[in-house]
Amino acid sequence: MQTVKLDIPVNVDAAIVWRDESLYLLDQRVLPGEIRFVKCEDAASTAEAITAMVVRGAPAIGITAAYGAALAARERQQHGGADWQAALRLDFAKLNAARPTAVNLMWAMRACSDLIETTEPAAYPASLLAFAKDLHARDRADNQKMGGFGAALIEEPSAVITHCNTGGLATGGHGTALGVIRSAFADGKITEVFADETRPWLQGARLTAWELVQDQIPVKLMADGAAAARMAAGGISWVIVGADRVAANGDAANKIGTYSLAVAAKYHGVKFMVVAPSSTIDMQTASGADIPIETRDPDELLRCGGQQVAAEGAGAWNPVFDVTPHSLIDALVTERGVVLQPDAEKMRHFA
Amino acid sequence: MQTVKLDIPVNVDAAIVWRDESLYLLDQRVLPGEIRFVKCEDAASTAEAITAMVVRGAPAIGITAAYGAALAARERQQHGGADWQAALRLDFAKLNAARPTAVNLMWAMRACSDLIETTEPAAYPASLLAFAKDLHARDRADNQKMGGFGAALIEEPSAVITHCNTGGLATGGHGTALGVIRSAFADGKITEVFADETRPWLQGARLTAWELVQDQIPVKLMADGAAAARMAAGGISWVIVGADRVAANGDAANKIGTYSLAVAAKYHGVKFMVVAPSSTIDMQTASGADIPIETRDPDELLRCGGQQVAAEGAGAWNPVFDVTPHSLIDALVTERGVVLQPDAEKMRHFA
Repeated sequence: MQTVKLDIPVNVDAAIVWRDESLYLLDQRVLPGEIRFVKCEDAASTAEAITAMVVRGAPAIGITAAYGAALAARERQQHGGADWQAALRLDFAKLNAARPTAVNLMWAMRACSDLIETTEPAAYPASLLAFAKDLHARDRADNQKMGGFGAALIEEPSAVITHCNTGGLATGGHGTALGVIRSAFADGKITEVFADETRPWLQGARLTAWELVQDQIPVKLMADGAAAARMAAGGISWVIVGADRVAANGDAANKIGTYSLAVAAKYHGVKFMVVAPSSTIDMQTASGADIPIETRDPDELLRCGGQQVAAEGAGAWNPVFDVTPHSLIDALVTERGVVLQPDAEKMRHFA
Repeated sequence: MQTVKLDIPVNVDAAIVWRDESLYLLDQRVLPGEIRFVKCEDAASTAEAITAMVVRGAPAIGITAAYGAALAARERQQHGGADWQAALRLDFAKLNAARPTAVNLMWAMRACSDLIETTEPAAYPASLLAFAKDLHARDRADNQKMGGFGAALIEEPSAVITHCNTGGLATGGHGTALGVIRSAFADGKITEVFADETRPWLQGARLTAWELVQDQIPVKLMADGAAAARMAAGGISWVIVGADRVAANGDAANKIGTYSLAVAAKYHGVKFMVVAPSSTIDMQTASGADIPIETRDPDELLRCGGQQVAAEGAGAWNPVFDVTPHSLIDALVTERGVVLQPDAEKMRHFA
């Protein structure tokens, strides 16, 4: 991948940058120690960046894939020869398959496919680019809306727990779960954030802490296993997390460790909020059992901070996501409103 | 600290070595990548090694402190002048305070104090060394006993989950929870071990995996947050853990993350076993709420594998232990037998 330094002010809402007809992705694998961007100019480089987790977070992946579709259309139209439309459809399939769990990616690619069905081939690049930019802008706006909806659910000022990174880096801006935390902090309803470090990729330590420090929101990192003890210690009102896919019955797939938090929250009487745009809801998937869960390289666990830590010969169980059943979810917040205690019946209006 | 290479076959039961009138501790901070020992010749160096986690694990800390007491007696008798007995008592206090949570340390130091009450001063060094060697040997034998008691509780061959390191490295040999796993594997009752990597020190990844690979017991590491999802996936009969202190009502303090496992085990109908020698039981402490919980440097979370990972300005919540209430414990295994569903009434015979 081609990495570059960009002369722009770096902030959490500038993780996906369209500039000079190219796509630049803030390389989240090396944050916060290093600021560099990966330049994408076609479908292959965009899909590779998604697979390699240069960009991550379900909404951000969807937006990136839409820009990737626009890049693909331009490149195929210019250099793809007579069969360029067939090559473009293969590019779309490649982007669609870059990661399996987050449904926003499939949602965005389906929208791109639908768009070119009703568009003149000559206008594919411009139309797809306009779609990507609109998706990007709408995501920011939707996150602001969700921030307000979620903040309104928090009654007394208190501390909250979050997991992984769901902020500006994971979205078009503001964030989903972290957007609720930002909005609620601005409303005086959050005193402190306890952030799981979120092994194995340490998105909590590397990304969420970075975002919250920039916003001057008090944040304490903790080991993922410490969250239950933190709940037992008191003072936590809500666990607030994002989602990569929500099934038709309200079951939610999110970063590995989320389900553990939900079980502990139920045990301690702490409420559990899932924040995700409606593009994360997959009404074609009946329940969490039907959500494909990505498994990644065992080395993500056998190594830490770039160094081998485990004995040679040890294996690893490394699913990247887990499923929280709807029975453990107190509120599902989308840009269309709040579903309390989601279930198949209440989820029907997303069909 | 003075680190040395020792010309001995390294195995998990040789973590605490008495040789040529000195104490050598296998440096567990650099395992499995590097094999080196820290040489201790007096109370100060022994206490420093305990505090710095060169040696860890409640039983191993107790044994180490007893050897440290013998070293202290020899050193003070030879070089301490007229007030050498007063200096020795200060050495005992220093060893006693090296770490706050594991009660085995206080237990061993109280036994050393009791011993010198009834011993001629000239015989302190030899008597304390004999005590330390006996404690070391008894711990191995007790762990074998506990291994048999614990293995007998496992009904069908199945996979189990463990946390942190409780093996030969954490004890005089064989291990507590890992001793049960060894014995049960030998009996054909364990098919596979899922080991939490155990942040922030990664004892699971660095130490438990190393021990199990050496014993050819199949082991898969997982992120601490993945354990609940692993239970939901099925095939787990028991969570098996050690303890650093068990209160008079059966509440057990153990490595941070243990409580989260206990809550998840209860939710999934998985049974929960605590394995610890009776020296871990502190009948002077009424309940888990009275157990002092060590908090360590935030850098242990803000850094990973020696590198800064979190943003400057982020804080950390870093308690090293948490407390599992007795209501979540199905079996407490000691060398004196098994207490099912421990509570204050059933714990009375340890008084």
